[in-house]
Amino acid sequence: MLVVMQSHATEEQVRAVCQRIEALGLKAHPIPGAARTAIGITGNDGAVDLGVLESMPGVVECIPVSKPYKLVSRDAKEEDSVIRIPTAAGDVLVGGAHLALVAGPCAVETEAQCREVARLLKPTGVRLFRGGAYKPRTSPYSFQGLGEPGLRILAGIREEFGFGIITEAIDNESLDLVEKYADVIQIGARNMQNFSLLKRAGRAKKPVLLKRGMSATLDEFLMAAEYILSEGNYQVMLCERGVRTFSDFSRNTLDLAVVPAVKKRSHLPILVDPSHGTGKRHKVLPLSRAAVAVGADGLLVEVHHQPEKALSDGIQSIVPQEFGELVGEVRQIAGVLHRIVN
Amino acid sequence: MLVVMQSHATEEQVRAVCQRIEALGLKAHPIPGAARTAIGITGNDGAVDLGVLESMPGVVECIPVSKPYKLVSRDAKEEDSVIRIPTAAGDVLVGGAHLALVAGPCAVETEAQCREVARLLKPTGVRLFRGGAYKPRTSPYSFQGLGEPGLRILAGIREEFGFGIITEAIDNESLDLVEKYADVIQIGARNMQNFSLLKRAGRAKKPVLLKRGMSATLDEFLMAAEYILSEGNYQVMLCERGVRTFSDFSRNTLDLAVVPAVKKRSHLPILVDPSHGTGKRHKVLPLSRAAVAVGADGLLVEVHHQPEKALSDGIQSIVPQEFGELVGEVRQIAGVLHRIVN
Amino acid sequence: MLVVMQSHATEEQVRAVCQRIEALGLKAHPIPGAARTAIGITGNDGAVDLGVLESMPGVVECIPVSKPYKLVSRDAKEEDSVIRIPTAAGDVLVGGAHLALVAGPCAVETEAQCREVARLLKPTGVRLFRGGAYKPRTSPYSFQGLGEPGLRILAGIREEFGFGIITEAIDNESLDLVEKYADVIQIGARNMQNFSLLKRAGRAKKPVLLKRGMSATLDEFLMAAEYILSEGNYQVMLCERGVRTFSDFSRNTLDLAVVPAVKKRSHLPILVDPSHGTGKRHKVLPLSRAAVAVGADGLLVEVHHQPEKALSDGIQSIVPQEFGELVGEVRQIAGVLHRIVN
Amino acid sequence: MLVVMQSHATEEQVRAVCQRIEALGLKAHPIPGAARTAIGITGNDGAVDLGVLESMPGVVECIPVSKPYKLVSRDAKEEDSVIRIPTAAGDVLVGGAHLALVAGPCAVETEAQCREVARLLKPTGVRLFRGGAYKPRTSPYSFQGLGEPGLRILAGIREEFGFGIITEAIDNESLDLVEKYADVIQIGARNMQNFSLLKRAGRAKKPVLLKRGMSATLDEFLMAAEYILSEGNYQVMLCERGVRTFSDFSRNTLDLAVVPAVKKRSHLPILVDPSHGTGKRHKVLPLSRAAVAVGADGLLVEVHHQPEKALSDGIQSIVPQEFGELVGEVRQIAGVLHRIVN
Repeated sequence: MLVVMQSHATEEQVRAVCQRIEALGLKAHPIPGAARTAIGITGNDGAVDLGVLESMPGVVECIPVSKPYKLVSRDAKEEDSVIRIPTAAGDVLVGGAHLALVAGPCAVETEAQCREVARLLKPTGVRLFRGGAYKPRTSPYSFQGLGEPGLRILAGIREEFGFGIITEAIDNESLDLVEKYADVIQIGARNMQNFSLLKRAGRAKKPVLLKRGMSATLDEFLMAAEYILSEGNYQVMLCERGVRTFSDFSRNTLDLAVVPAVKKRSHLPILVDPSHGTGKRHKVLPLSRAAVAVGADGLLVEVHHQPEKALSDGIQSIVPQEFGELVGEVRQIAGVLHRIVN
Repeated sequence: MLVVMQSHATEEQVRAVCQRIEALGLKAHPIPGAARTAIGITGNDGAVDLGVLESMPGVVECIPVSKPYKLVSRDAKEEDSVIRIPTAAGDVLVGGAHLALVAGPCAVETEAQCREVARLLKPTGVRLFRGGAYKPRTSPYSFQGLGEPGLRILAGIREEFGFGIITEAIDNESLDLVEKYADVIQIGARNMQNFSLLKRAGRAKKPVLLKRGMSATLDEFLMAAEYILSEGNYQVMLCERGVRTFSDFSRNTLDLAVVPAVKKRSHLPILVDPSHGTGKRHKVLPLSRAAVAVGADGLLVEVHHQPEKALSDGIQSIVPQEFGELVGEVRQIAGVLHRIVN
Repeated sequence: MLVVMQSHATEEQVRAVCQRIEALGLKAHPIPGAARTAIGITGNDGAVDLGVLESMPGVVECIPVSKPYKLVSRDAKEEDSVIRIPTAAGDVLVGGAHLALVAGPCAVETEAQCREVARLLKPTGVRLFRGGAYKPRTSPYSFQGLGEPGLRILAGIREEFGFGIITEAIDNESLDLVEKYADVIQIGARNMQNFSLLKRAGRAKKPVLLKRGMSATLDEFLMAAEYILSEGNYQVMLCERGVRTFSDFSRNTLDLAVVPAVKKRSHLPILVDPSHGTGKRHKVLPLSRAAVAVGADGLLVEVHHQPEKALSDGIQSIVPQEFGELVGEVRQIAGVLHRIVN
Repeated sequence: MLVVMQSHATEEQVRAVCQRIEALGLKAHPIPGAARTAIGITGNDGAVDLGVLESMPGVVECIPVSKPYKLVSRDAKEEDSVIRIPTAAGDVLVGGAHLALVAGPCAVETEAQCREVARLLKPTGVRLFRGGAYKPRTSPYSFQGLGEPGLRILAGIREEFGFGIITEAIDNESLDLVEKYADVIQIGARNMQNFSLLKRAGRAKKPVLLKRGMSATLDEFLMAAEYILSEGNYQVMLCERGVRTFSDFSRNTLDLAVVPAVKKRSHLPILVDPSHGTGKRHKVLPLSRAAVAVGADGLLVEVHHQPEKALSDGIQSIVPQEFGELVGEVRQIAGVLHRIVN
């Protein structure tokens, strides 16, 4: 923390701030400049909230210096974390040199629908299947997902096609079930700061895919992951899915720069969801290419065999054939970056 | 829903869209313009997601027309809802002509702290006391609240001082306890779209204070309230607490225009939280005045007797004496609007 | 500037950064913390762009500490600036205890229109008249303003009714004319960082009203004013007119917290434009009250006698009678703050 | 325009709105739904501002349907526009299958600096050189550019190295000179809605590179281009350079989804500036790859041989060797999209 004093702050005011800092058991380092004095603080492990110094006389502002995350930080672990998702056909790796594709419908609607999508996806080489049994919907009157029967359908898909299964949990009850039926537990954007759910996910024995909240800063995103790691689950994958801005032509603004930003600060892998990230079918392919080009560790793509009949998000779903083209193009781009596509 | 066709869309394309609409059991109303044709759709009760029409040939875009909320709408109930919070000294009313003030510390830290704040607040005339026993914190290493012992402290404050108690629930488990100990159940900004929690709150027998999410649109905010009403709990108060923007000088941007916007669309009361809304102590008083002047139905203000020692959010807490001045000024402004301050 | 080193930065890396700083003629102040070292820099007058230190090995980030503004700062002048606008009926004062109301149509359309609006405004007691002769419009096909003939109409209004005249300049050519015909030169939001225009305004002999850009940070806003002062014109009034956010229910998000934030940092007065700030007629009155309650030094309100026939922005214009009510309410609220309404 | 009536609007109110519409010389098309009536309007060429209907009794809101742009629209010209920039070594093409790279320092500082950067860039195969002689700077105390002498240095670079020259104009005076000395006239983000400058650029005989404003919607961006085309200059290239959001880890948020969005609506080419778009040197390469992968028609990259000594924006400049690697990677990705790199 750095405390910036007013240019006309008195020596007495500077001294008072230093004394307050020392009284908190910390060390004050005054730096007298030509225009004003700034005071560095060391010794704080995060327990003391120093922002209050801002209301002392002569203080302009308090600037946080240290980053709050620990376990997710590259300071804690320098090499990339590689997450291992077991499937019938061997482990799928995510992170490091390994890039993973995930595809499937927004929602599990019926067994027939999931099997049809799975059947059409199989030849594309994708190995992870997604589909929601619990759907967080803006309206209470929209389709809310099948719940446990939906999870059973997904387990059947794994059985029949050998896919690893990723599906969302929305509260502690559904997380218990998702942990039982699926291979990866997804925490959605709306729950990124549902700390109760994050703690429960931190006690799960399966990998977690954590989506960035709609207006989460990078620090908040990494701190949400820190919640999971701090409870003992180190198997965390991040996922950028677009943030909310003033932009008027797409559902969200896909913030691809977060990928190199995460990689600079954290060892965790980060995937990109171009379907929610754009909200429009015709943008999924170009943004998928861009996500792989920027260095993402994977893609999460909504695919439906009949998007116009989908119970949710049909507008952003592509058909299996388009997904096949997508796989072809992103494989080539992954090659330019010397990445291995799972 | 209105479907806008390209200016060079063929008659056949227009016809195909109309047929698709009719096939869904809805009615298509083509409106041929000089430049292009638009097609109105009627008969949709919200069950069908029409966005997918956007991918049909010749279509430019689909524009939603109807608002999705029902029970929270002024269409459903024209007069203002007035929420009644029972206290030892009689009911506190919120909404209509009645404006309610809520004050107290960010977090329940100790019994002594709460009693001291309560003692100092009592003479200001405020009748509702706030304080968090469950604290959603960005960092897992920050103080997370006292939990049930904190709720018991709040119940003691009610007993001793006669305040009504407002406190936050963060998951289904804590909501059970909050419903038991408190008078109003608060749902925080980070949980505004925790739909599982909203449904549980909808089955509670106590009033709910629902805070706007950090990047919630007005429709999303009202739909979150709709979740609670749709489960049978009509005792809902909304609360603006600042939204996230590019702005660099305050923690959030307090969006006061949402107050008249809510009042135009909904019968529910809306309060304002100038403490979180600005994140800075010196802005709490001016923004409190502004909130009452814009027509808010109440204020939620963080007050601490020793802000510099607060375990959370000391930087935005004012001292009881400042709150006394605040009450004086907002009473005068409320008078200009012919509002009754509880 | 504060340079934050990585927790595992070597002593050599810290030394290299310090040497680079000293080589630039500045002074380095290393602050060794438990987790990492930070290096304070003093002696920089703003000429050296230190951000590049961020690319040196071992550096995490560079945090600017000093504020870049000088002349607009309270450090330069502690008491509030009061701007004096001469009119036939004596000076109108803006700033300090003085609060000024400005009203008039969005655009000067015809002499008859301006005279009718002026005639209806006169009894409300407002003393400053606004109206655009040069209109920055999103579309080249929209009404662009009458130009110099419009300025002559405004000069006629001053002659006939005794109002002071505020009108916008959009380039150096129009600024020459506005300076000649009007009493206050307005720089619009879209030109807030048209630095060529700001410099020209800085050489003008009349007061300038500078509107905040749609996504201007507070520092950028104050630096834009600094451009004007740095050329010798100290007669500057700021104006908040709403910023662009994700918000879906109003044209802009009126950021009233900027008022106390400006007042903390600068001696310049700041007005609020609730018409552009909300873009909706029914929000103008409540947000006007809120602006005065938060401490604004004035209001800029669009008033048209026939909003439904206005050539621009009719949707946000109120009628003169509504403006009369507005004056009544804001006078009462100004009284609570002990302000004098001009 | 579509006018949405309240669900309890009376027939009389619907009739009144229709009559008002017809009185304006337009045609009203009422669409009675189960819940409410909507009224389509046809016959409006944009001259009438219909938003005011929103204040009529019984009206909920007015929804614009037609897009305001004409000449920039794919409705006006279906095939991609290809801009031709003449250089000593033949024309550089931008748009359609052709992708152009532009590189050079942020600011023209000295002749020696420009010649050194140019000399190092030449072997990378890049054919367009950028550098600012007029610099829009947030602070009046920062380096403002060399002005005409800077333009003469750029003309010398063209002479010596055969590059095409792109440089920014900031007002009508500088545009006259830029048109004389350079090959492409750049309009910067801060001037995207400097309509006076746009009109002047529309009368220029050279191609224009128009950067997106910091918070410009897609419609505003295209309408700014429409200003230039409407004055007769059809040689316009757009450029995405990042938008302003809440994001805390980069200077701007690069909005790559705007590329397919522009291509859907307009025939104009669109480039991407990853230097301003991220503001950090280590993000330039990954975002350059992503920009080409998403389908951009070119890149604008800041390159400096000694970024740590740059007079502006050193923090986001890469060195010529890094640019060489960038060219290698983006050429491969362009190949995946069957694009020709100039």
